[in-house]
Amino acid sequence: MTDFNIATMAHKAKIASRVAAQLNSSKKNTLLNALATAIENNSDIIIKENSKDIAAGKEKGLSAAMLDRLVLTAQGIKEIAAAIREIVALADPIGGIDKLSLRPNGIQVGKMRIPLGVIAMIYEARPNVTAEAAALCIKSGNAVILRGGSEAIHSNLAIAHCLHQVLIAHDVDENIVSVVPDTSRSVIEQLLKQSDTIDLVIPRGGESLIRYVSENSRIPVIQHFKGVCHLYIDKYADLTKAVNILVNGKTQKPSACNAFETVLVHGDISADFLPLAAKALEEAAQVKIHACKNSIGYFAHAELATEEDYQAEYLAQEIAVKVVRSFDKAISHIHEFTSDHTEVIISQDISRSQAFIRQINSSVVMVNASSRFSDGNQLGLGSEIGISTSKLHAYGPMGLEALTTEKFVVFGDGQVRA
Amino acid sequence: MTDFNIATMAHKAKIASRVAAQLNSSKKNTLLNALATAIENNSDIIIKENSKDIAAGKEKGLSAAMLDRLVLTAQGIKEIAAAIREIVALADPIGGIDKLSLRPNGIQVGKMRIPLGVIAMIYEARPNVTAEAAALCIKSGNAVILRGGSEAIHSNLAIAHCLHQVLIAHDVDENIVSVVPDTSRSVIEQLLKQSDTIDLVIPRGGESLIRYVSENSRIPVIQHFKGVCHLYIDKYADLTKAVNILVNGKTQKPSACNAFETVLVHGDISADFLPLAAKALEEAAQVKIHACKNSIGYFAHAELATEEDYQAEYLAQEIAVKVVRSFDKAISHIHEFTSDHTEVIISQDISRSQAFIRQINSSVVMVNASSRFSDGNQLGLGSEIGISTSKLHAYGPMGLEALTTEKFVVFGDGQVRA
Repeated sequence: MTDFNIATMAHKAKIASRVAAQLNSSKKNTLLNALATAIENNSDIIIKENSKDIAAGKEKGLSAAMLDRLVLTAQGIKEIAAAIREIVALADPIGGIDKLSLRPNGIQVGKMRIPLGVIAMIYEARPNVTAEAAALCIKSGNAVILRGGSEAIHSNLAIAHCLHQVLIAHDVDENIVSVVPDTSRSVIEQLLKQSDTIDLVIPRGGESLIRYVSENSRIPVIQHFKGVCHLYIDKYADLTKAVNILVNGKTQKPSACNAFETVLVHGDISADFLPLAAKALEEAAQVKIHACKNSIGYFAHAELATEEDYQAEYLAQEIAVKVVRSFDKAISHIHEFTSDHTEVIISQDISRSQAFIRQINSSVVMVNASSRFSDGNQLGLGSEIGISTSKLHAYGPMGLEALTTEKFVVFGDGQVRA
Repeated sequence: MTDFNIATMAHKAKIASRVAAQLNSSKKNTLLNALATAIENNSDIIIKENSKDIAAGKEKGLSAAMLDRLVLTAQGIKEIAAAIREIVALADPIGGIDKLSLRPNGIQVGKMRIPLGVIAMIYEARPNVTAEAAALCIKSGNAVILRGGSEAIHSNLAIAHCLHQVLIAHDVDENIVSVVPDTSRSVIEQLLKQSDTIDLVIPRGGESLIRYVSENSRIPVIQHFKGVCHLYIDKYADLTKAVNILVNGKTQKPSACNAFETVLVHGDISADFLPLAAKALEEAAQVKIHACKNSIGYFAHAELATEEDYQAEYLAQEIAVKVVRSFDKAISHIHEFTSDHTEVIISQDISRSQAFIRQINSSVVMVNASSRFSDGNQLGLGSEIGISTSKLHAYGPMGLEALTTEKFVVFGDGQVRA
């Protein structure tokens, strides 16, 4: 692919982004419905291309988990089409004006929501991201450059082909969606330098990918390093709720970034809570326990927790347990070890829960609910394009609105400044 | 200053930022009022320290304009105190929860506005920025690290001393405000690497400073490179409004980034408009004209405009003039040369003005008003901490809200995910 030039692709995307920004909701929804249909109609071709990726992946010795994320079945393709149709159903975030106010000199000032422009997505194995990220960017009036992993290149190009056929058939600049055909690392390097044409980079994948992108990008990056989510069981906790939420948040899907990694237990109720927790975690999923010296006695099989355990994102049926002497000690533990993802307090006391909400500034802070709700869909954003754990621009699960910004609009009648 | 360590300063600021985030409005306003008084009471000392900067500046051969920006008079100090008291009067942006919605499973989801954490300001000569930026950061619950120019170091440290005395007297962690005592370039380099403790960098100064910071920062940066503001006189313009707004936007304060640099004139009215414009610009300020070949004949003294003229931010009584054949040509000229700052259309036609508002995605887009309103105060934000011409996080003039973000808050009653 010596002919491929990322700067040219980004420049074409920039021009196409002006077209994307002007599409009205009806047109965008027509495109997305056509895209869902095209993906279903081309199911056989996509599966055939996907099987090339699977074969290559097996040859390269990809793990079973990686292959599992890579594989597209007829059912999987139906789910992609369904996800696109869900995006059709979302409200169009673009073009509304709010906060209109009249200034003393008679000018009207408001803010209009607009697309960001060109978004680059850099991601790993999952080919469904290709279709869903493209759909979210179209709905929010952006152009998008998709750079998926080399493992999924045949699948991604097959999906991109459907996308382009739809855009061409509807007489819309097909550069609104570009799939980078070259999967070398050097293309990412080049991509991250196109700050004149690309407005935002969203990396999705492991911590090393995100760190690499953050450190090498001249373009703003949405960062999500890891999710070390804390559950704090307060002195005034309802212990039934506490146990249910602990089990759900830890064991329902331990590979998710919104699963609990540490539970902090107030010393005054630890003798009541820990036996219940030990039993429930064992029964639910034989969860491996890393316990502090004050809690280890309550578990049949536990290792003594180290500093590393409090930093760990296990992504497995494993949890750190620590008894804290006070509410303030819980807060300071979280301040020290937070990844700014999600933290939960279990308490029936309104003062404690308010103080927790005020003092913990992670991207999602919850009272008496499972951390597993920390996801765009569950929080009511519709589809999720990623999660930000850095505070700039977007913080927490990102829906369509995170792909937009606001400009000032001013309506005058000839006013000049005195 | 071999003992000075920026990482230590940033770490202390991070810890202090948790204190700043918890201050309630009354306490913050008490601090700011005390600060305004302290600055007034220490007027003589500040002026004495400022005179050291002035003397050093003269010795270094600073330009008259630079010295002018540097000098602090008794009146200037009163204005700083007044600016701080204006910040007292602004609404506290922190702690409100909005968009509270009830999800189908009964959890309540909302968004609470919170401070960003630690903000680093890197700026040049003006010592008033030291006091005003500190006041804006305190009001928005942030900690701030101030790194002013070497030219103003004595003035900045004198103002910082007032700040610290006030914080100590009110029993508040004085690391909420830090002034970097070392003015070497290498300190900026180190500062820009503290991404674990600093949340945002705001550079204020010339394009070279902003470019240097953007290219070397591991921390998100608010970028404002330049303001090449366009005025488009539409075919359906009211020519009286057009002339007034041209003269005001160009000549009232040409050194401001919101002054016009290019005026585009629709061909159908150019023969009527250009003679009026030529006369008015000459009378107001003998504005130097760089005109296209279709407009040059209307001006007594004009140079032929080059490509560079359309890129130029003159910051002087100078303007580029171009006749365009159509509305669309005006839009495409702006798309090509925009700095994403401010663009204005003069038109009585509602379709044209709506199309302009929709198609131009600069940070401020105006109909029939002077670009000189493109400023935080004029747009109703209260004090302005800077202007962003990149779309991430903040776009356009930045007030207190741009120093904040929103976290998700979830109130449950024991809900778990199915």
